[in-house]
Amino acid sequence: MNYQQLLLDYQKHYQKTRALEYMLTLARYDALTIGPKKAVNDRSLIMGYWSIELFNHNNSAQYENLINNLEAVNYRLTPEMKRTIYLARRQINQIKKIDPQDYRQYSELLPQAQVAWENAKQTNDFSIYAPYLEKIIFYVKKFATANKTVEGHLYNTLLDQYEEGLTIAKLDDFFNVLSKRIIPLLRQIEKSSTHINDEFLNHKFPIDKQKNVALFILNKLDFDLSKGVFSESAHPFTSGISPNDIRLTTHYYERNLLSSIYSTAHEAGHGIYEQNINAEYHNTVLGTGASMAVHESQSRFYENIIGRSSIFTSMLLSYLNKEFNEQFIDVNEKNFYHCVNKVTPSLIRTDADELTYSLHIMIRYELEKMLIGDQLQVSELPDKWNELYKRYLNITPYNDQVGVLQDVHWSGGAFGYFPSYALGNAFCAQFVKTMEKDLIIADIIKSGNLIPIKNWLTNNIYVYGKLLPPFELLKKVTKESLNPNYFCQYLEEKFKDIYQL
Amino acid sequence: MNYQQLLLDYQKHYQKTRALEYMLTLARYDALTIGPKKAVNDRSLIMGYWSIELFNHNNSAQYENLINNLEAVNYRLTPEMKRTIYLARRQINQIKKIDPQDYRQYSELLPQAQVAWENAKQTNDFSIYAPYLEKIIFYVKKFATANKTVEGHLYNTLLDQYEEGLTIAKLDDFFNVLSKRIIPLLRQIEKSSTHINDEFLNHKFPIDKQKNVALFILNKLDFDLSKGVFSESAHPFTSGISPNDIRLTTHYYERNLLSSIYSTAHEAGHGIYEQNINAEYHNTVLGTGASMAVHESQSRFYENIIGRSSIFTSMLLSYLNKEFNEQFIDVNEKNFYHCVNKVTPSLIRTDADELTYSLHIMIRYELEKMLIGDQLQVSELPDKWNELYKRYLNITPYNDQVGVLQDVHWSGGAFGYFPSYALGNAFCAQFVKTMEKDLIIADIIKSGNLIPIKNWLTNNIYVYGKLLPPFELLKKVTKESLNPNYFCQYLEEKFKDIYQL
Repeated sequence: MNYQQLLLDYQKHYQKTRALEYMLTLARYDALTIGPKKAVNDRSLIMGYWSIELFNHNNSAQYENLINNLEAVNYRLTPEMKRTIYLARRQINQIKKIDPQDYRQYSELLPQAQVAWENAKQTNDFSIYAPYLEKIIFYVKKFATANKTVEGHLYNTLLDQYEEGLTIAKLDDFFNVLSKRIIPLLRQIEKSSTHINDEFLNHKFPIDKQKNVALFILNKLDFDLSKGVFSESAHPFTSGISPNDIRLTTHYYERNLLSSIYSTAHEAGHGIYEQNINAEYHNTVLGTGASMAVHESQSRFYENIIGRSSIFTSMLLSYLNKEFNEQFIDVNEKNFYHCVNKVTPSLIRTDADELTYSLHIMIRYELEKMLIGDQLQVSELPDKWNELYKRYLNITPYNDQVGVLQDVHWSGGAFGYFPSYALGNAFCAQFVKTMEKDLIIADIIKSGNLIPIKNWLTNNIYVYGKLLPPFELLKKVTKESLNPNYFCQYLEEKFKDIYQL
Repeated sequence: MNYQQLLLDYQKHYQKTRALEYMLTLARYDALTIGPKKAVNDRSLIMGYWSIELFNHNNSAQYENLINNLEAVNYRLTPEMKRTIYLARRQINQIKKIDPQDYRQYSELLPQAQVAWENAKQTNDFSIYAPYLEKIIFYVKKFATANKTVEGHLYNTLLDQYEEGLTIAKLDDFFNVLSKRIIPLLRQIEKSSTHINDEFLNHKFPIDKQKNVALFILNKLDFDLSKGVFSESAHPFTSGISPNDIRLTTHYYERNLLSSIYSTAHEAGHGIYEQNINAEYHNTVLGTGASMAVHESQSRFYENIIGRSSIFTSMLLSYLNKEFNEQFIDVNEKNFYHCVNKVTPSLIRTDADELTYSLHIMIRYELEKMLIGDQLQVSELPDKWNELYKRYLNITPYNDQVGVLQDVHWSGGAFGYFPSYALGNAFCAQFVKTMEKDLIIADIIKSGNLIPIKNWLTNNIYVYGKLLPPFELLKKVTKESLNPNYFCQYLEEKFKDIYQL
């Protein structure tokens, strides 16, 4: 077998994969930002067409044969090609038993479900969305059953798709540690006498000025706007169209200034990661983040470790003072830092404080486990959602808009994705612990020049792209397996200080 | 030959054509609006990939065979399918002799040329653009030579691509009539004692407020924003992504309020045409405008016949009074109508008045004829451009930015396209003459409800989509061949009144 020819064949195959993914990513981005809702039927037909084309492209006997042949010459491959072929095999295993007809129907369903979810959310009517969600879960389970690669619960197969090697067993342990340390701390805070007065944040902040603040944030955090786009969508997200075209979105609410600020910082973290991956990996399967959790560790790093630090919030405050002057006249640095980090069990995940955030994820994790394990019906979902919010956060959604309808994920078929958000926080804390051995983070933030931090992240994490599986990358960087205690410790130190416990 | 099966085969073939065109159109729109310039290389590779895929898809022996077979059962086809197969044959003839390798290089060249043009325009440096333009002309000529379908001058083949049946002979006659009537009128106006004072238009008009005006225009003209997108680009254009997703762009200049207003009205005309094509033709080759000239007749109709009419400008003035109050305080309706129609030989085509507009096109027509006929080199183009502006408009561009670099078209390979702009004006005047038999246009504009006009245009023109060739459609609607005298007569009446000649 001519080994060079095999590599050329693979490259030719991947060229089409890449061209298909580019167009699908662009079309999805477009649909979520400016594409007219009324065009959903045409758009879903087209996207279904290309999704099935991509599916078929990676699901042919010829392609599997090529991968077989490359596996046979594995010893001759570079680490990059070894990983590439491993990922190709993983993907083949994930899709080979899926009926193409099912996949087409599923692909056409998703854009419609997206619109149904938007309408349901807008009108606070879960019943608009429910039949779509049922169909999505039907397909997600069918696909996972066909390709069950992981032992035990079917949900394990879904988890593994987003986070190589992740299982219910691992996650149960993980959330156990978290809830045992977070919930008591939350109860202490609720009982504490410290009152954080953030009334000034309830006022109106004109959207135009909020847009200036968002640009200030992107600039401070060093997201390169010349190699990206910044726009708006109902739900903020980051989309990697191509290596020099990384797109972030945010959402502005006139009466929630912090929402757009921290959404922007969060998405900037995702974007900075994508913008700083090894250029040699551009336009290859390795040219993206290691996993959802590692991605989330970076968005959370820029949002929380930098964005919600007392030093950064001081800089932010002086900018806000200029932009909104009279509205911030009575706010001092300490007060603002406290406001930005105020702990309030709340309804909306994306607006949650750092402490309660993981509980929002834990709720979704439990719901997904039940939905995939047939222990919960879609019709029962809103009540169960509310019940779990009551149990863990001691708060009940006053309607589905701020309850079960808040997230876009399930409408896109993303079951098994949410846990990565919580893992991301833990990864982040563990990376920071390591970073602190090399850098004095607070001093760098204070200097106003974050480049040394970006360089550290680039050299230690970003440069690898998708070369290493997430838990391996974590170990390589931190010399340790996943340890949620770093995250818990960080939370305890930070919030005990703020709430004087 | 199973005739039903042939139709199904054709539909299957077209489904992919449509899916490819959708993605290419979306990617082009994206590139011209928000896509980062620095992503041009990746983007051009991807677009090249899909362009060549589309090229190959319509350039296979199998497909030609299918069309042969459908031609053999032509007598059984509906008028729609007859036209569809005729257009398919036409396209096959246009591309079958093009070397796919050439086509790929050309496809990859265009996005780069686009950026080179933008940079050249921005820095007023024709030399940045010249090598790209040379390459484009090289390919355009090579392709036209390979597929020469029309007798005589090579340029005829290019003209025919944009306007079925158009030739240099027809255009020479056409421009002869126009120049013989327009240039003397222009000289009279230049000598007339009527002075139109439009000094107030030289002031600054904040972009935010101009955006409100643009939305007012779209609303007044009945462009359906729920089935489209309105955004910004360097050069205004309209893009039909899908039947319910028609996108318009405009461009705002702080010191040129009329530019964004009339660009918006112009693109709205294109958009309204696309939005009102027979729904049965949606997602077929017939589901778009008849030709460039017919399209332009509609954009010019909304821009000029409606937008620059004295009744519409009065309504516009009262809106502007609200939006910009003090800036319009001394402007009366007649004065504003005159300002909007002020005749000034000027440098920029898109900002030209109705009278001189056709002369701008005539210049480009002559230059294209020479470039394609090897009578002019790219290096000589800027001088020749300036020379012709001096000859016809009696004005010399003070730099290339406002001269040869002003138009996007050539950077996209569009040679033979410009004449359609001038034809569009003539088509428009001829359509209006017919419309006047059924409607009192001025009264309808005055009523503020333009639906009767849109309905007339829909029933007489839009409904046909691409079913009829442009000159046939013109004859069907107006019962007459192209007659440029209607346009000349319209211009003479309008401008003799304004300039009291």
